[in-house]
Amino acid sequence: MEKELYVKMALSGWHGQNKRVQLLLDKLTDEQLNRQVSPGRNRGIYLMGHLATVSDMMLPLLGLGKPLNPAMQEIFVNVPDGAVKELPSIEKISEYWKEVNAALDAGFSEMKADDWFGPHTVVNEEDFKKDPGRNKLNIVLSRTSHLAYHFGQLALLQSVQKEA
Amino acid sequence: MEKELYVKMALSGWHGQNKRVQLLLDKLTDEQLNRQVSPGRNRGIYLMGHLATVSDMMLPLLGLGKPLNPAMQEIFVNVPDGAVKELPSIEKISEYWKEVNAALDAGFSEMKADDWFGPHTVVNEEDFKKDPGRNKLNIVLSRTSHLAYHFGQLALLQSVQKEA
Repeated sequence: MEKELYVKMALSGWHGQNKRVQLLLDKLTDEQLNRQVSPGRNRGIYLMGHLATVSDMMLPLLGLGKPLNPAMQEIFVNVPDGAVKELPSIEKISEYWKEVNAALDAGFSEMKADDWFGPHTVVNEEDFKKDPGRNKLNIVLSRTSHLAYHFGQLALLQSVQKEA
Repeated sequence: MEKELYVKMALSGWHGQNKRVQLLLDKLTDEQLNRQVSPGRNRGIYLMGHLATVSDMMLPLLGLGKPLNPAMQEIFVNVPDGAVKELPSIEKISEYWKEVNAALDAGFSEMKADDWFGPHTVVNEEDFKKDPGRNKLNIVLSRTSHLAYHFGQLALLQSVQKEA
């Protein structure tokens, strides 16, 4: 019962952030997404691809299968914005983002509360024994913060109106 | 046992973000903190005060006492950057931020795992019964995301070097 509650809390935080990012992406124009979030910084389109790819990489970490599109890591994770001459189109990245979220949701729905407290796939048994916090649910918590971090940057692409 | 583990996971996420923000603040010059994170957006100094104040407001929410400096809410929460002519000095905000974090840590150390799963002070009993996820620990989870959101913005004040 309690386990279920923690899982619900963590997943609800994750879904809440994802929903807010989705609402923002729906609002931003292609022109806005092609801008840098601040002079000399990552463009919106890059951050969008970065977030989708990092979410995609959660699938293997959580033991939910292979990433849907591992090639994206070479574009959006291993190298900074600007390194790859032509990024996939905004439309393509947007589809990818939605597919990844659907795959994660499908995987999540198969997981029992106990599964979430098992080790994620990159921690070894010994380290997990020492620190049982290195479980799958913790991946969700840390990826929620990662999402919020870049969401704060993407939010700067909106037409200027004060936000706090 | 599981409760303790879950509390540990949430607090470790909170402390991890705070530590990263602190490291960044230690690195940023006053000149950088006085800049806007992107043209027309909040200045670093405002965001720093905003984060300290929102953390201060966690004290009453968690039943840990009154905010250390409620007057800050009028400057950093209720109005956007620019509304108040002269902000407190960076030095003063930095002290405030450290005092707030010390007060939170002191309060956290008194809390038992069960306390974290009690209602926060703004949810009423009936709503809490309907959704026991509206507990004190959830405040920590949502404030961790809030911290990460603005941390992503503050990070843009660093000298330009690619970050992902």
